[in-house]
Amino acid sequence: MSFEKLRELALSVRNWGRWGPDDEIGTLNYITPETIAAACRLATTGKVFPLGIPLGRKGPQSGNRARFNPIHTMFRDSGDAPKDEKGVIELQGYGGADDWIVMPLQCVTQWDSLAHVFYEGKMWNGYDISLVTSSGAAKNSIDKTKGKIVGRGVLLDVPRYKGVKRLDPGYAITPADLDGTAAAQKVEIKSGDLLIVRTGFMTTYLERADWSGYDSDSSPGVSVYTAPWMHKKQIAAVAADNYAVEVRPAEIPIFRSPFHACAIPNMGLTLGEIFYLEDLAADCAADGRYAFLLVAPPLPVTGGVGTPINPYAIK
Amino acid sequence: MSFEKLRELALSVRNWGRWGPDDEIGTLNYITPETIAAACRLATTGKVFPLGIPLGRKGPQSGNRARFNPIHTMFRDSGDAPKDEKGVIELQGYGGADDWIVMPLQCVTQWDSLAHVFYEGKMWNGYDISLVTSSGAAKNSIDKTKGKIVGRGVLLDVPRYKGVKRLDPGYAITPADLDGTAAAQKVEIKSGDLLIVRTGFMTTYLERADWSGYDSDSSPGVSVYTAPWMHKKQIAAVAADNYAVEVRPAEIPIFRSPFHACAIPNMGLTLGEIFYLEDLAADCAADGRYAFLLVAPPLPVTGGVGTPINPYAIK
Amino acid sequence: MSFEKLRELALSVRNWGRWGPDDEIGTLNYITPETIAAACRLATTGKVFPLGIPLGRKGPQSGNRARFNPIHTMFRDSGDAPKDEKGVIELQGYGGADDWIVMPLQCVTQWDSLAHVFYEGKMWNGYDISLVTSSGAAKNSIDKTKGKIVGRGVLLDVPRYKGVKRLDPGYAITPADLDGTAAAQKVEIKSGDLLIVRTGFMTTYLERADWSGYDSDSSPGVSVYTAPWMHKKQIAAVAADNYAVEVRPAEIPIFRSPFHACAIPNMGLTLGEIFYLEDLAADCAADGRYAFLLVAPPLPVTGGVGTPINPYAIK
Amino acid sequence: MSFEKLRELALSVRNWGRWGPDDEIGTLNYITPETIAAACRLATTGKVFPLGIPLGRKGPQSGNRARFNPIHTMFRDSGDAPKDEKGVIELQGYGGADDWIVMPLQCVTQWDSLAHVFYEGKMWNGYDISLVTSSGAAKNSIDKTKGKIVGRGVLLDVPRYKGVKRLDPGYAITPADLDGTAAAQKVEIKSGDLLIVRTGFMTTYLERADWSGYDSDSSPGVSVYTAPWMHKKQIAAVAADNYAVEVRPAEIPIFRSPFHACAIPNMGLTLGEIFYLEDLAADCAADGRYAFLLVAPPLPVTGGVGTPINPYAIK
Repeated sequence: MSFEKLRELALSVRNWGRWGPDDEIGTLNYITPETIAAACRLATTGKVFPLGIPLGRKGPQSGNRARFNPIHTMFRDSGDAPKDEKGVIELQGYGGADDWIVMPLQCVTQWDSLAHVFYEGKMWNGYDISLVTSSGAAKNSIDKTKGKIVGRGVLLDVPRYKGVKRLDPGYAITPADLDGTAAAQKVEIKSGDLLIVRTGFMTTYLERADWSGYDSDSSPGVSVYTAPWMHKKQIAAVAADNYAVEVRPAEIPIFRSPFHACAIPNMGLTLGEIFYLEDLAADCAADGRYAFLLVAPPLPVTGGVGTPINPYAIK
Repeated sequence: MSFEKLRELALSVRNWGRWGPDDEIGTLNYITPETIAAACRLATTGKVFPLGIPLGRKGPQSGNRARFNPIHTMFRDSGDAPKDEKGVIELQGYGGADDWIVMPLQCVTQWDSLAHVFYEGKMWNGYDISLVTSSGAAKNSIDKTKGKIVGRGVLLDVPRYKGVKRLDPGYAITPADLDGTAAAQKVEIKSGDLLIVRTGFMTTYLERADWSGYDSDSSPGVSVYTAPWMHKKQIAAVAADNYAVEVRPAEIPIFRSPFHACAIPNMGLTLGEIFYLEDLAADCAADGRYAFLLVAPPLPVTGGVGTPINPYAIK
Repeated sequence: MSFEKLRELALSVRNWGRWGPDDEIGTLNYITPETIAAACRLATTGKVFPLGIPLGRKGPQSGNRARFNPIHTMFRDSGDAPKDEKGVIELQGYGGADDWIVMPLQCVTQWDSLAHVFYEGKMWNGYDISLVTSSGAAKNSIDKTKGKIVGRGVLLDVPRYKGVKRLDPGYAITPADLDGTAAAQKVEIKSGDLLIVRTGFMTTYLERADWSGYDSDSSPGVSVYTAPWMHKKQIAAVAADNYAVEVRPAEIPIFRSPFHACAIPNMGLTLGEIFYLEDLAADCAADGRYAFLLVAPPLPVTGGVGTPINPYAIK
Repeated sequence: MSFEKLRELALSVRNWGRWGPDDEIGTLNYITPETIAAACRLATTGKVFPLGIPLGRKGPQSGNRARFNPIHTMFRDSGDAPKDEKGVIELQGYGGADDWIVMPLQCVTQWDSLAHVFYEGKMWNGYDISLVTSSGAAKNSIDKTKGKIVGRGVLLDVPRYKGVKRLDPGYAITPADLDGTAAAQKVEIKSGDLLIVRTGFMTTYLERADWSGYDSDSSPGVSVYTAPWMHKKQIAAVAADNYAVEVRPAEIPIFRSPFHACAIPNMGLTLGEIFYLEDLAADCAADGRYAFLLVAPPLPVTGGVGTPINPYAIK
């Protein structure tokens, strides 16, 4: 039953072959030089909103599903700096600091690549999942999107539309909610848009100054039934301020992430997670402009299935 | 002798206190909403040039100075995906891939933070270097620049100006070279610009398809004597396609990186390294437009002294 | 008050200079070829008890004090193996698996090096703590003990002596407890012994099959006032089945780990933590032999301040 | 031709099923309490020879086959220690150092697990290779050998037998060489022995104080044709002072590591690599005793396919 329900939805949004048999970036193809140029024209005041959360030891990961928070230390620090002229000569300078990081590519504000989620033994565009091994994803890896993730960003601030601080845990955002919010905000969704959905979920943890539970608590998020809506709207990518874009717990028994299953391997839709939206949302509410230039370059990790990002919304 | 020569230069460009005693971002303060909005107006065609090199096991680091190339593997891959319906139910889905990376923050295309280089026991703005320990930089860390690195990018393509494919190893680019190139390109350097200097150095390694030597070979780069020029021009940041922006070997005996010592701890100038410039440079030569919107968001690593980036030049 | 109390204890057990001004291994000097040969004679039946806990994602670290559980993945796995003869020829074989690990050196069963804990700006033997920088410990690092940690192991099973399954959380094991246990077990502590104290603390977590709380709960452990006893007995090293050898919470207000402060930087005593003792303890109770050959080689990490180990008790 | 030659050898030494269908440790089963007790009796003088090389940034790995040298830095160092009484109170002590390491499990002195090498889609004891995924080896992992790697060690010092400092690069040690060396050394190989073959190969790099080339140069090592000899002798494990135990280049065209292919997946023989043997070999030559107690505990890495070790030879 659940299997069939998911399959019906998945097939209804499937875009395999739409951009040729060799495509590896899916709906990012909706972005064109024209949409980018138009998006740049939205940036009239030079205000910049960085949407990435800090990369630090205190972060949203509790260790579930192998994900941990970034671990960062130094190769060289002030203790290694030369103490006198002799030391300066030996080290050829006054010293400095070098550092390094160990991190899951899915641990902070991020884009999922189209190799991140499988469906019935296949990935986006019908590639076999055996192409993803311990040495990386031979198809649909994040580096294929290297120069692609920039365009018109549109924020849909659903809780503000509904007059609440944040949506309730477990609330599934419907297509009607998205349409209603867009209408109230007087913004139209266009082909190639980078859609950003605010649920308010992150505010709970920001207020507490404690991320505990963020990755496992019940969460508002988009309904699996918004997949056809996004398909029809020709969204290029969708992001949110919760852990997984979609609602938790999920709406189709058995599946933890049915929206992912529709969006990533079938529609070829790039998902963005753990976006910090509070400053941007306040500014949009203040000036009534919910569309802007969004620039969110991935790190081109060879064979990677995700990337940490710090997207800039520029108005 | 060398100590005095460096000190004279360093003091001549020192900006300590210019933006108050608590400043941690230095010359990025030259960027304003107005310069950003003006930069966005340069992006008229929607062409995007990603300037980040791949993050992979074959990269520019040979292990010198503790830096290595990114190491990337999977937590989950296709081998871990469920084999049948029972497995799907247990795993609550059809599986997917998660991955992780270990990397120095200085190993690929990057911004240096203002805590990266020390001078006579101090960092940028006069902070004591003891603020940089194994647990991170308490001042001048890269996360302080979180929403700051976007503006007008200007490419100065020095080898093209000089009519050569690439500058010779060890060639020190002078202020006259920079002025000459700008004049030939009909572009004016303005306060708040993100200056990108092309040396052609990377082409040697790109042609070979082998990075060996990139981090240790003699290299063209800016002369230490361009520091006063950049100071006067009020450059916000400077980046290049070589390993260290500056020429190697350096021009002041003893010091390996005298330009760094002037720029980072004294001027407060953010440096960008290992930029991939070939496609951008070809396009600028073709259309004669050497100024563009540059968006290069840092990853906000708490206490970090650098960040990998994938800057977008948008024309 | 607390400062003075700790200082009095610390100075009473201080061994600085005892083995010369250049010593870096402290009480491990009590071990001699003779004590090793005698210990080997104790191994008469060939029974082996491995005392190391598993290195896996589910382990005793909750993230406190920067420590996490080992992270282990593959560079190559079965998905990368060749599929046919052509592939075998290309890869020069039928494939295989390579893996890697990221781990704190203090995250599982371990030895602390003598650079692990500081006291009033100094380390063991009076070395200044500035010798420990981000690039490692220039003195007292674990690699100095490379061939040293083997000898006569003696288990003191305190809960069994007291007739309880495990000591209560917060119970501080006294010198009288140690003497009483040794007498009841008919074993004599000798110079150069590797003393293993069983508290039973780990059994709580083993029974639950869940390490949660192991690193932060109140715990039985040795009293800070056992330091003089160990000093007098000329113990070479001491280990236990709890997180920190010593009792938690500690007995001297202010200090989290006063026994560490006495033992490591002052006495030069090597500490072993998170030892799995259940099988060994059961066997000792069964045959009444509480002394055995203990072989616990450190990994010789250059500049390291600890090492994961899998000690073998051989009877 | 090569395929058949390897298959003939492989099948001639195959031990699948010998210790039951569930076995995961292969020839380590030859070790018994009796052989261990007998080995302990060989340790009469208490001399200890640690056979592990340092774990540091300068090591034998050049980056070939994804292996790199250990990377080690600090979470806390002296720069993080409290500066005054107030700081001591805040930190609950005088500070200390914690560190961490990132390392391939095959990068230093090591044991390979029986999941390390595949043969025709299978592992040791006939397990399918699909049991080895990015999340680890479900069968034949190194943690299965947790309490098993201790016994009688026998050094066969082949270059000393042949009167040379070191064997020539590419020299394949034959069964006759092994027999000749044993006879000259007056030592008999017994069932359950941990055989250590000295080739002298490491001396080249030790003399240079530079590991460059150690992992890729031509190397002396055991011939693939010694596999039947080891099979017949019932060796429990074999180790050497070169990179791969076996000779390089290999003797069967096509295959890079034919001895591995016979030994690990077919015979179930544990291999040890990069053993430091110089001090031990000198001592054996001096006293004429080539048999000793060898204790080489693996780190019990859950699902691991190898482990770094620091074996102790005790005489």
